Amino acid sequence: MFMGTGASEGIALGKALMIENEPLNIEKKEIEDVQKEKNKLLEALEASKEQLTKVKEKASKELGADKAAIFEAHLMILDDPELMQNSINKIEEEKVNAEFAFKEVADQFITIFESMDNEYMRERAADIKDVSDRVLRNIVGQKVIDLSMLDEEVILIADDLTPSDTATMDKEKVLGFLTNIGGRTSHTAIMARSLEIPAVVGLKDITEKVNTGDFIVLNGETGEVIVNPTEEEIKKYEGLKEQYEKNKKELEEIIGKDSITIDGREVELVGNIGTPKDIAGLKKNDAEGVGLYRTEFIYMDRDSMPTEEEQFNSYKEVLESLNPKPVVIRTLDIGGDKKLPYLKIDEEMNPFLGYRAIRLCLDQKEIFKTQLRALLRASVYGNLKIMFPMISSLEELLEAKKVLDGVKSDLDKEGIKYADNIEVGMMIEVPSAAIISDVLAKHVDFFSIGTNDLIQYTTAVDRMNEKIHNLYNPFNPAVLRLIKMVIDNGHKENIWVGMCGEAAGDKRMIPILLGMGLDEFSMSASSILPARRIIRSLKLEDTKKIANEVLNMSTAEEIEKYIKNIIK
Amino acid sequence: MFMGTGASEGIALGKALMIENEPLNIEKKEIEDVQKEKNKLLEALEASKEQLTKVKEKASKELGADKAAIFEAHLMILDDPELMQNSINKIEEEKVNAEFAFKEVADQFITIFESMDNEYMRERAADIKDVSDRVLRNIVGQKVIDLSMLDEEVILIADDLTPSDTATMDKEKVLGFLTNIGGRTSHTAIMARSLEIPAVVGLKDITEKVNTGDFIVLNGETGEVIVNPTEEEIKKYEGLKEQYEKNKKELEEIIGKDSITIDGREVELVGNIGTPKDIAGLKKNDAEGVGLYRTEFIYMDRDSMPTEEEQFNSYKEVLESLNPKPVVIRTLDIGGDKKLPYLKIDEEMNPFLGYRAIRLCLDQKEIFKTQLRALLRASVYGNLKIMFPMISSLEELLEAKKVLDGVKSDLDKEGIKYADNIEVGMMIEVPSAAIISDVLAKHVDFFSIGTNDLIQYTTAVDRMNEKIHNLYNPFNPAVLRLIKMVIDNGHKENIWVGMCGEAAGDKRMIPILLGMGLDEFSMSASSILPARRIIRSLKLEDTKKIANEVLNMSTAEEIEKYIKNIIK
Repeated sequence: MFMGTGASEGIALGKALMIENEPLNIEKKEIEDVQKEKNKLLEALEASKEQLTKVKEKASKELGADKAAIFEAHLMILDDPELMQNSINKIEEEKVNAEFAFKEVADQFITIFESMDNEYMRERAADIKDVSDRVLRNIVGQKVIDLSMLDEEVILIADDLTPSDTATMDKEKVLGFLTNIGGRTSHTAIMARSLEIPAVVGLKDITEKVNTGDFIVLNGETGEVIVNPTEEEIKKYEGLKEQYEKNKKELEEIIGKDSITIDGREVELVGNIGTPKDIAGLKKNDAEGVGLYRTEFIYMDRDSMPTEEEQFNSYKEVLESLNPKPVVIRTLDIGGDKKLPYLKIDEEMNPFLGYRAIRLCLDQKEIFKTQLRALLRASVYGNLKIMFPMISSLEELLEAKKVLDGVKSDLDKEGIKYADNIEVGMMIEVPSAAIISDVLAKHVDFFSIGTNDLIQYTTAVDRMNEKIHNLYNPFNPAVLRLIKMVIDNGHKENIWVGMCGEAAGDKRMIPILLGMGLDEFSMSASSILPARRIIRSLKLEDTKKIANEVLNMSTAEEIEKYIKNIIK
Repeated sequence: MFMGTGASEGIALGKALMIENEPLNIEKKEIEDVQKEKNKLLEALEASKEQLTKVKEKASKELGADKAAIFEAHLMILDDPELMQNSINKIEEEKVNAEFAFKEVADQFITIFESMDNEYMRERAADIKDVSDRVLRNIVGQKVIDLSMLDEEVILIADDLTPSDTATMDKEKVLGFLTNIGGRTSHTAIMARSLEIPAVVGLKDITEKVNTGDFIVLNGETGEVIVNPTEEEIKKYEGLKEQYEKNKKELEEIIGKDSITIDGREVELVGNIGTPKDIAGLKKNDAEGVGLYRTEFIYMDRDSMPTEEEQFNSYKEVLESLNPKPVVIRTLDIGGDKKLPYLKIDEEMNPFLGYRAIRLCLDQKEIFKTQLRALLRASVYGNLKIMFPMISSLEELLEAKKVLDGVKSDLDKEGIKYADNIEVGMMIEVPSAAIISDVLAKHVDFFSIGTNDLIQYTTAVDRMNEKIHNLYNPFNPAVLRLIKMVIDNGHKENIWVGMCGEAAGDKRMIPILLGMGLDEFSMSASSILPARRIIRSLKLEDTKKIANEVLNMSTAEEIEKYIKNIIK
């Protein structure tokens, strides 16, 4: 048994097929016939273009425009006049063979992109490498392995897969794949999930442990791989596979259905996102909107503040793409454990109890105003709700709203439009906010309970601290009482109350939260359909009883035990 | 105007007297008459003994046995046979003058003690230096300035004062003093407070800025000093002095009186202490017991864990000394910002939300058990109440009580006695504990609300963090609601509820807390009499109305404004 990183969930059983491209061995040769080498290069470029166009069409049909865009980018690289012209110059001036000249030039480009301290640029280097590899194989006449024409069902084994590999592979024949390198967010892992092919990556040397023809079973969730398993193991994996597929089918069947209890209580099931890229996952999982857009990602991995325009584009993209579904965008929650290289914050002894989120925004109002301007400008493209993080007192809330009103006035003066129905809400994640939620509810359109921080502060437990992790528990009775208090106080003022912490997607918490009256549940994309299934299996009346029972209990242990008996 | 550290409160106006001992200039001289040098040494030792005996007697009469003990220690140094014998040997063998020989030997001792990494030993070095200085002046016939015979009222100006200076000075003639060096806890500052002489220390170069005969005004609370003030300034300081003395007299008049409102609500006014040394201050300020004994000081400034015996002695001393008054001893609250050199705790990102206090004690039970054994054994010497810090759940409380019961069983088996009426209580300083205080109250004999931490966690504000200090406010309405909730929940279960955070001694908070029903107020010694005066000026019925008003307010600002109008 081998353990890798589960990269794409599902169970696969089948025969191994090793994909080992012969290593490319490019040597420098002095040539005499310059024209011949130039022709070789141009023909290879032409062949590559034809191949990539096919790949792109296939990808566009099977994987969607998003994924096909990668190959559009590859085609553009092939069309780059510098890449071709510099190679030709090299052949002519240095009298070297085509493959050597092209490799030299391409490697130069790769090096330049790789050296840039920017994730996007480093990804471009990988694209150039993929394209250059294809061109070189076409020059030297080495066959590019074609995964679109497989004779039988296989599990692919490779060092890594290129975008071309994953785009062209025959989905019907590839049962799963295993790679030496990569992690959960590597290209191969992302492609595997979008192809819905079970995959385990990061297995280090699986290509040396497996031969073509070996029988393989793999669990794409846990990362387990067995090579040539026993009868018993095969039986177990067949059982797991059946169960997984049944579960998946059930979840697929509730796509498009309402998030409603048996007795008619309908709630909103929405998703948490960090960047516009996450929208695809939300749509696939039938999210009813966005309950938390963490805008700090726009500020990270950069050397300077994002401009109003950059922010505007990002917010617009999300709003437009989901319109008319609601999108709750949280204003900047930086500080604490999230730092920006270009925004100096003094070291703090207890950053979680420090200068962060709304505290920073109200102290450095220009940053805050820029974001609010971008949000307001984007509001006309969809259904925006603005949410303030880390509010701990009425004073802070009123001040934040005052800044928002100021920005609106500025836009009015400049004649810039914004939606006139933007709901303004706040996170409830500081205990003091929960405790005075009756007061705060009079001044907002909604609450969203951030359980991760609320648990931390209420129990004085840093959830990252290994030494006390057993004290961090969403079933802490004090936390549950605060949640109930917040929901009741919100409803008394006729505002809706949501939750965007991890607890909202926890199947053991959902009955309790439903029973308490929570209106909106925001979670990661993959939790949405399972959550809907649970909601559709419950009666509101029963959950009310569950919530009441739980609220009368004294310890987290007692509550967990009770819930375990209800939710299998 | 100069600013130093206010070391002993009070206002003084008067003429400056510089105390500059002539510098001692000891030179090595070759001598021939060995016997003569030996005699000089022995005579000087004798003279020093006589002087010190007088100083000791004076100190004993005027300052109490505690302070006189310093001079007992000085006398013992003089009696040290090594000090004398080594000096005599040096005279005989090296044929050097008495003062040189004695200085060489004394300096050796001083160096040894100074080099020890231990506060106590370093203090001993200072004692030896004081004694050796006296002996040397007696050898060379330099007069030791005698502060016991002053002709007129003066304000003393010095680099620093020695214990001998402060012990012998004529209290009637010394109006105040100013020193270049020292801080609030330096020897001079402590002596000034115990003599009740206004003093400002740490003025850096005040000896260079003042001449004997200059007129001086000083404020021993704020640290302000004015040399040769204007008429107007003198008038202002005379006013301040009058006010200060009136206030002091009023406070002295309520020593021995009850802490009771006009309409008969009596509460307990007790003190916070760190070491047995603090008892004197409590007694002087008529504390009705100890509401918080922070035992961590016993563990600090050491190289190893204090033994059970050492702890027992420390607890016994406090209990005996205050018997039959109640003494609430809090079990170890280490971790967070308080570290022990011999107890390795990994660096934490948020130590205030980390591994500390009861969490550490329940994880490292041997430390906890040793302390509980020492506490139980000491319990027969007074009125002990045991208090657990940082409890955040019922599970923790029950586990702590289980450990206590286990230690009791052990003592039973060993036939060791402990009191059978020890109350067991807990701090309420984590929001979750306040929120489930109805549950917790069933399992303890009392609550003590620790406002410093409760405010921190409830509002997610590290009170040490300068950047957000404006958010740390005891008048935060959420905090006040929690306090009220805890008091009500305690009373429902018929247990008493106290407070040992800084808020308990805050004159603006006292009416609110009284009105909420708080039973016990624990504070620093100097706050006790002012608090009693406020309590004696209030009607319980009025404070109930105040508390109700305040609990209906929405912001700290509103509450502070309202209270400001009530308490002048």
